Amino acid sequence: MARAWWGWGTEEGALDEGETARLVTRVRELLPDHDFTDHPPPDPYALGLPRPRVSPPPALAPLCSDDPVDRAGHARGKAFRDVVRNLTGHLPWLPDLVVRPTSEGEVVDVLDWCVGAGLPLIPYGGGSSVTGGVEPRFEGPSVTLDLGRLDRVLEVDRASRCARVQAGVLGPDLEDQLRPEGLTLRHYPQSFEFSSLGGWLATRAGGHFATLYTHIDDLTQALRVVTPRGVSQSLRLPGSGAGPSPDRLFLGSEGTLGVITEAWLRLQDRPRWKATASVSFGDYGRAVEATRVLAQSGLYPSNCRLLDATEAYLNAGVAVDGGLLVLGFESADHPVDARMGRALEIVREHGGSPFVSERDAPEGGEAADRWRSTFLRMPYQRDALARRSMVVETFETACTWADFEGLHAAVTSAARSALSELGLTGLVSCRFTHVYPDGPAPYYGVYAGGTWGDTVTQWDTVKTAVSEALTASGGTITHHHSVGRDHMPWYRGQRPEPFAQALRAAKERLDPAGILNPGVLVG
Amino acid sequence: MARAWWGWGTEEGALDEGETARLVTRVRELLPDHDFTDHPPPDPYALGLPRPRVSPPPALAPLCSDDPVDRAGHARGKAFRDVVRNLTGHLPWLPDLVVRPTSEGEVVDVLDWCVGAGLPLIPYGGGSSVTGGVEPRFEGPSVTLDLGRLDRVLEVDRASRCARVQAGVLGPDLEDQLRPEGLTLRHYPQSFEFSSLGGWLATRAGGHFATLYTHIDDLTQALRVVTPRGVSQSLRLPGSGAGPSPDRLFLGSEGTLGVITEAWLRLQDRPRWKATASVSFGDYGRAVEATRVLAQSGLYPSNCRLLDATEAYLNAGVAVDGGLLVLGFESADHPVDARMGRALEIVREHGGSPFVSERDAPEGGEAADRWRSTFLRMPYQRDALARRSMVVETFETACTWADFEGLHAAVTSAARSALSELGLTGLVSCRFTHVYPDGPAPYYGVYAGGTWGDTVTQWDTVKTAVSEALTASGGTITHHHSVGRDHMPWYRGQRPEPFAQALRAAKERLDPAGILNPGVLVG
Repeated sequence: MARAWWGWGTEEGALDEGETARLVTRVRELLPDHDFTDHPPPDPYALGLPRPRVSPPPALAPLCSDDPVDRAGHARGKAFRDVVRNLTGHLPWLPDLVVRPTSEGEVVDVLDWCVGAGLPLIPYGGGSSVTGGVEPRFEGPSVTLDLGRLDRVLEVDRASRCARVQAGVLGPDLEDQLRPEGLTLRHYPQSFEFSSLGGWLATRAGGHFATLYTHIDDLTQALRVVTPRGVSQSLRLPGSGAGPSPDRLFLGSEGTLGVITEAWLRLQDRPRWKATASVSFGDYGRAVEATRVLAQSGLYPSNCRLLDATEAYLNAGVAVDGGLLVLGFESADHPVDARMGRALEIVREHGGSPFVSERDAPEGGEAADRWRSTFLRMPYQRDALARRSMVVETFETACTWADFEGLHAAVTSAARSALSELGLTGLVSCRFTHVYPDGPAPYYGVYAGGTWGDTVTQWDTVKTAVSEALTASGGTITHHHSVGRDHMPWYRGQRPEPFAQALRAAKERLDPAGILNPGVLVG
Repeated sequence: MARAWWGWGTEEGALDEGETARLVTRVRELLPDHDFTDHPPPDPYALGLPRPRVSPPPALAPLCSDDPVDRAGHARGKAFRDVVRNLTGHLPWLPDLVVRPTSEGEVVDVLDWCVGAGLPLIPYGGGSSVTGGVEPRFEGPSVTLDLGRLDRVLEVDRASRCARVQAGVLGPDLEDQLRPEGLTLRHYPQSFEFSSLGGWLATRAGGHFATLYTHIDDLTQALRVVTPRGVSQSLRLPGSGAGPSPDRLFLGSEGTLGVITEAWLRLQDRPRWKATASVSFGDYGRAVEATRVLAQSGLYPSNCRLLDATEAYLNAGVAVDGGLLVLGFESADHPVDARMGRALEIVREHGGSPFVSERDAPEGGEAADRWRSTFLRMPYQRDALARRSMVVETFETACTWADFEGLHAAVTSAARSALSELGLTGLVSCRFTHVYPDGPAPYYGVYAGGTWGDTVTQWDTVKTAVSEALTASGGTITHHHSVGRDHMPWYRGQRPEPFAQALRAAKERLDPAGILNPGVLVG
């Protein structure tokens, strides 16, 4: 299946005519006055893309591609603003070469070449960044290091339930290789099909579990990172207290300190028992309270996602007044009915009404399949709407329970005011993707009718307003979408200044030529 | 109660005559030929301790103590080798002053003075280091910064179940201040009574929970750290993916990057339901296997400590052939019988025999009190035996389940060989203090009859042998005792070299004068 150079996923995965018509009909009900004219992607060969400005050393030439479409496909991530800029043929920054190493030795060779040539190098996994993380947004030549050929599970330690995995593997391929062992990582970001292990690690991706093991950080046992100062290999340890954690320096380093080539991952047995339930609330505040109590209960649901009324209507097709809580428990060891029973007691005590319950559904049951399929197809729908002048994008954060009410009011108000000042009609939705004993991770969606040619600027205006609101209200600029280039203005204001200095010093020591993903995190 | 300058805890807490006699009688059964002559501590005023070589600026003078016994009491931690060196009056390194700031502003002032004067400064919490972490083991003057007066809970966020706490507070005082809120940190290292929050954070201390929240790291929401480059205050966030975690750089930094003055902590509701059980095994290998399955079950016991036969006999007074597993579950929200029931099924499937079970014991029940009291009094017993020429010390590590069998054989063999080559009779015991899905954290005890005047050297010989064995077998040099000065030779070999360079660069940037706890971690 061919990857779409301009939009999400594969060419074949895009919405077909019937799906598109149904989607447009549904959205038109909400935005009857919007102009749904389709703006298909341009022919990339007709864009007059610039020729590469650098040539690889002969030994590396077989790994390099200078094909303009290949380079255009690696020029940015898959955020709304990336897709729209591709659709309008606006491609001011392209990597000059896409390099695809087949071994760690070749990664070292490419890095050596770039260090020697002072050539910026951007590590690239699945290319699903939504924060400008893989975009050479600077003048001068650059090289994108596509790790996609490093895609193997190299070793499995069944007793410790771990595997050593190459960083370029994408989600489905990883799970396919683990399945014969009866093991699974159970890390399913929405980008699962088109994001890589290395990308998850470099960006501290959030995954499947709504509680406990929320980030890939928690599933990481050891890391192997190629840096300009040599290869960093941490020990395989279930826990340690020997100084600051080496892995935690590289987790979230977004390609600025080195190239992650391998990791030992903590895996799960495949779940045998599951229970799911949906709970409707008449009042959003009580729904939030119920979710807080659940998050603090020690029940550790694997799914605990609170959708507000807009989100429930748009993405679950359910009409509720206050909110919809989607609850799930799973275990490979024991039945989970008792935990679900207690969870339903808690939600009832807070005015919730459980209205769908599937107990002990076999893995991959019909409802789970349907949901997963819908969830994974959302970015394709986003592309179809982006082609039709809609502003469709998400942003996310995390804050304490004490801060949430104020943050939520400030963020939704900022988004609605921004839309209104732009003269746009739209909706703002919210769901919790993860919940902690000390706070939720709210994830917002914005859906508005924009104006073709202006939708990137329109989104940027909304994004600035909500980013100001959420950082002023105690939220992080990103819970799991990474900093990239787009979040830098707010990240700079949020990290403690002495830590920024320590990070800069570490960067200067490990990457003195400053070639690793310039413009991200440091500076 | 007066702190003992030479040994553990308080003068009043030491074993009384009757306790001492009973202990010696018990140990004499194991070591009938040992010379149990008591060697009481010297009069510190008679040791001719050197006068301080530095004077504080007048503004700081009221915070400073140059009393020789105060300085001797702050000259080192509370490891076996620290206590014995105190008993023999061997005090080559003393801080010149003990400074006790009463506010963060005064911490800044002290730091400014030390930076300007190029004077080494050692942050000091409860002084319970067992790795040489607070010892000025170098020539030239130094100052010890005792944070004990910064001991208040400053703020409580009940909804998010968090509190802002000053770093100098000791365990019992912290719990006393949290109790009226119905909250608890539930972090009970063996040093609980005499270790501080700041010390726990700076050393990544291990606590009460055998699974899930094993280290203080997991209970940390935000940190405030005074560095020579300014104050680092991280955001209060339940989770974040914005770059490498700032807190994870300071957690485990052991006073080398700054002085932790405050933290926002994630707290627990006080447990209402508890269940405990003891399980005996005839075979240690099967006991380990049962513990592994439990650790991978997702049941998350709060206690899951596997004692080998020696440990069970010495510290629980129970005779078993293979091992004794102490299991506990607790919850503030729901009964825990179902989880205990499943756990007992698992242990029975692996040949375990539950023989004591207390269900739903009220918090602070008799058995819990008895165990806690015994656990907390072990260091006093250690002191009584150290005075009587015994070599009594512990060390700990963590490794994968796959590595454990080999590591355990190598470590116990190295310890026994070392004792044998020293001509000493002794025992080596093992318990798991924490267990993870991917491996256990084994904690070893060594009890041997030494020779007065040589016991430090004798212990050092054993420690070197076991450290070589455990690092060669895939174990960390420390799971929760910190690196300090004693573990540096092995820590240097275990951290990835590029990480060591990054840490050194961070240190040089934040502490360019190199005054913060020199000799620890960096170098």
